[in-house]
Amino acid sequence: MSDYFKQYIRDVKDFPKEGIVFKDITTLLQNPVALRETGEALTEFAKGHSVDIVAGIESRGFIFGMYLAEKLNAGFVPIRKPGKLPSDSFSQSYELEYGSDTIEMHKDAIFKGAKVLLHDDLLATGGTAEAAIKLIEEAGGEVVQVSFLIELDFLNGKEKLKNHEIKSLIHY
Amino acid sequence: MSDYFKQYIRDVKDFPKEGIVFKDITTLLQNPVALRETGEALTEFAKGHSVDIVAGIESRGFIFGMYLAEKLNAGFVPIRKPGKLPSDSFSQSYELEYGSDTIEMHKDAIFKGAKVLLHDDLLATGGTAEAAIKLIEEAGGEVVQVSFLIELDFLNGKEKLKNHEIKSLIHY
Repeated sequence: MSDYFKQYIRDVKDFPKEGIVFKDITTLLQNPVALRETGEALTEFAKGHSVDIVAGIESRGFIFGMYLAEKLNAGFVPIRKPGKLPSDSFSQSYELEYGSDTIEMHKDAIFKGAKVLLHDDLLATGGTAEAAIKLIEEAGGEVVQVSFLIELDFLNGKEKLKNHEIKSLIHY
Repeated sequence: MSDYFKQYIRDVKDFPKEGIVFKDITTLLQNPVALRETGEALTEFAKGHSVDIVAGIESRGFIFGMYLAEKLNAGFVPIRKPGKLPSDSFSQSYELEYGSDTIEMHKDAIFKGAKVLLHDDLLATGGTAEAAIKLIEEAGGEVVQVSFLIELDFLNGKEKLKNHEIKSLIHY
């Protein structure tokens, strides 16, 4: 399945910096057939789970995060970059190759005991998803699955998230 | 209809700065019933239009932009902040109260003659949407509708977009 979906992904060399081959999902998104097939496959991953909330990580995680929320009859919660959410928020920082980054979620975004599916477009080192899981658990939610459009297997991000069910559609 | 949906919007005082009452849509999104009702109403706005592509403006415009793309069997095109898109892009700047801002769209995101529905969460002064329309037209697309979750009527943003069909679900 992974190989099938790769036809829709564009490789862009030297983005965001020299030596990196960026996996561009916009070619998949702009194709209505690919968009539907991708959405259906991600929805299939969630089969058997009862999901109250889909949380998507800003900003590409909003895209199929919203698709999943609609298909699973769940609410949608945006996990955002610092200073974007207007009301009281939990905050989590995580390490990057150089320096660190922070994500936030409204404190009242998730009711206690809510079953949450976390979605992002890309699993690289897993730092962002790990921080997002902490936010959801801090709010009292239970992460029932973490799904990604793309996983970079060689970065072994799964290791950081090993206490959770991880599903990725496309593997490199 | 506007009054009905207002129950789901949270007013946050003094965000992003003192004196501003921010219209927070996260309370609508996290409610599965409100999310579905909102999505259906926005889809209803598009009835009678043939739509090839839904373009959503980063990042809150991605949310119901994707919902609409799925419902209308269209592709989804993200219009993004500068430096985020990996491939060749068109760029448009627009004026803000203080200074200016820029948005970008991949040059090959839209085929010539494509019918495009542009979506964003908020119509304020209309500067962002006007710039987004220019991007779509530069790529050879035709904007068949511009839809918003919320319109701040008193800012008269519609005036800037007067050559286009504008639909907003909630009016303040």
